[in-house]
Amino acid sequence: MLGILALVGDKWSLLVVGQLRDGPLRFGELHRAVRGISQRMLTLTLRKLERDGLVSRSVHASVPPRVDYALTELGDSLLGPALALGEWAIDHRTEIAANRLRYDAR
Amino acid sequence: MLGILALVGDKWSLLVVGQLRDGPLRFGELHRAVRGISQRMLTLTLRKLERDGLVSRSVHASVPPRVDYALTELGDSLLGPALALGEWAIDHRTEIAANRLRYDAR
Repeated sequence: MLGILALVGDKWSLLVVGQLRDGPLRFGELHRAVRGISQRMLTLTLRKLERDGLVSRSVHASVPPRVDYALTELGDSLLGPALALGEWAIDHRTEIAANRLRYDAR
Repeated sequence: MLGILALVGDKWSLLVVGQLRDGPLRFGELHRAVRGISQRMLTLTLRKLERDGLVSRSVHASVPPRVDYALTELGDSLLGPALALGEWAIDHRTEIAANRLRYDAR
């Protein structure tokens, strides 16, 4: 299970997959949507997701060429677990922040 | 959502939480159960999980003292999403491995 979780168990991959839930986005749109990610980290994350077959990259012939990133069928199947984890994190962030303060104060 | 996912979106945290699903374990038991984790990384991961309030650490008065790690109620609530992600990874590992070969060969 170890090497497998390494596939998806990094926050950037999960966040990028989550942001593609409603359809394809361009690089710049993803960069704005995933707050805090650097251009370099987004490039690396998209390449990893494309290599794993979770995201597809399409180049559209226009001037300038438009490049879209979209979930593949496999990427779509990760949406459920990825969003569940994200929801859990949002639901419990206050409790976790309080736990940290308590731990650091002792 | 970013800082929050950082809480849980690392594979070691998810793997340790998953291993505690059936009850408390000692350090050595966890070390054997989470394959590939170093003692140092397990120590750091447990400290982070304890700080976040996901895992509790109990010292039992015996000779030598026994130290157990267990999920808190909060940690227990993460089990569902963590195991769902792990199951997804296991279910799709062959497909992902094939995608990587295809990507690297092109």
